Amino acid sequence: MSVAFTTTHRVEFFETDMAGIVHFANYYRMMESAEHQFFRSLKLQIAGTLPDGTPFGWPRISATCRFRAPARYEDVITIEVSVKTRSHRSLTLTYEFRLNETVLAEGEMTTVFCRVESGGKLEAMAIPEDVVRALESFN
Amino acid sequence: MSVAFTTTHRVEFFETDMAGIVHFANYYRMMESAEHQFFRSLKLQIAGTLPDGTPFGWPRISATCRFRAPARYEDVITIEVSVKTRSHRSLTLTYEFRLNETVLAEGEMTTVFCRVESGGKLEAMAIPEDVVRALESFN
Amino acid sequence: MSVAFTTTHRVEFFETDMAGIVHFANYYRMMESAEHQFFRSLKLQIAGTLPDGTPFGWPRISATCRFRAPARYEDVITIEVSVKTRSHRSLTLTYEFRLNETVLAEGEMTTVFCRVESGGKLEAMAIPEDVVRALESFN
Amino acid sequence: MSVAFTTTHRVEFFETDMAGIVHFANYYRMMESAEHQFFRSLKLQIAGTLPDGTPFGWPRISATCRFRAPARYEDVITIEVSVKTRSHRSLTLTYEFRLNETVLAEGEMTTVFCRVESGGKLEAMAIPEDVVRALESFN
Repeated sequence: MSVAFTTTHRVEFFETDMAGIVHFANYYRMMESAEHQFFRSLKLQIAGTLPDGTPFGWPRISATCRFRAPARYEDVITIEVSVKTRSHRSLTLTYEFRLNETVLAEGEMTTVFCRVESGGKLEAMAIPEDVVRALESFN
Repeated sequence: MSVAFTTTHRVEFFETDMAGIVHFANYYRMMESAEHQFFRSLKLQIAGTLPDGTPFGWPRISATCRFRAPARYEDVITIEVSVKTRSHRSLTLTYEFRLNETVLAEGEMTTVFCRVESGGKLEAMAIPEDVVRALESFN
Repeated sequence: MSVAFTTTHRVEFFETDMAGIVHFANYYRMMESAEHQFFRSLKLQIAGTLPDGTPFGWPRISATCRFRAPARYEDVITIEVSVKTRSHRSLTLTYEFRLNETVLAEGEMTTVFCRVESGGKLEAMAIPEDVVRALESFN
Repeated sequence: MSVAFTTTHRVEFFETDMAGIVHFANYYRMMESAEHQFFRSLKLQIAGTLPDGTPFGWPRISATCRFRAPARYEDVITIEVSVKTRSHRSLTLTYEFRLNETVLAEGEMTTVFCRVESGGKLEAMAIPEDVVRALESFN
């Protein structure tokens, strides 16, 4: 598993809590932002329409994070995204948060490729070929 | 201008920042929550469909807040909503935040009654009669 | 493992995202809120000072959530907190989110009892006797 | 009043709401971020210690925003910060949010220079000379 994408994030004041550190719920937002930046770097969309006009998306089925060390206001965090597993219909990415050499946190999110049926119902389906190809080099 | 609606909010840990107090941006969320509770108490909807099936909403055109004293984790804040002005198409509500006898903040938001045209365009229109009637007692 | 504490949360407009559902990062905030309500119900503190004056806290070491079904604006979600495991120094609570009979999400967070050394360094230590006793009935 | 500082912000998915647009409370967070970037560009601190060791800060006394047009996921918003007024103790900055040629929103925040007395009490004081000098060119 090699690193697929790297980005950075400077901690905002509003991301801190009264313990003086980044509030843990913000790590999930940082993961989402990094995930979307990764997709954008591959010219892939997080949501859109299939060739037949049906909307698609990547709903999350799980998100987890282990917290190793706190981050503080103005810290510039490096976030490394890697492809852990890709199955027929789902994708698991891992996220390593670092401040210089210190690992701050390790996250993981699994999303499923879904078509949105009329009425809003989500139906899992095979990840399209062009998406598979775009992700292939990071397996 | 008499108080139209009163609610309370217990400060959550995730609403604080590294200064040890409620982050100011959360006052706007508390205003929205109090506004929606006020509407709910009148059996009015924040968004829905007009009798002819057109969707409607109340987009905000301004929101302001003056901060007098800080609030802290676990404080139980009282929020008083009052109708400041109601015009043909718009509504201005004020919000007083108190902790016991101390005024923490004073907010104000103006929203406009709009129909959502196809394509998502918002068109201001007269506030419907039943909504006017429901708001009348608070003028 | 029996349910230790139950609370409810009405979904706020600001908790939704453009997919029309509760944004996943808000489940971690709901977990924190339920955790703190659970502690409060036991007259326990999330942070405070030990008898010798040293500050203590319960930093999180991990938080995970599995998402089963979406929640929407104004849904009243029931959150059930259970004690999964309690070790010498750490506590793992689980959180079940339900809308009526539908399970929306299942979360889990592990926190460690820590004293805050001068300089802010966190040192894991045995959970105090009175806290152990308060949690005992939920094992 | 000339523009003092310009930055950009790409709208995150988690900043949107079920109306499909950026939730209004996020504009206040964008203002804070732009304000802090502006200070950083001048090598000024938002919080720190005075030469005599007393902590200082810039608590907000008011924040307001007028909303002109909605912003959507992935929009790259330009935020222009200008110094509206600077008095002996306070500073009022304005924030113009634009998407290409469209003005999305116009904000304003007033902050007061304060020393933090022991016990956390805030005492307004004259803005220090070096800060005045750094801000002078934007009057």
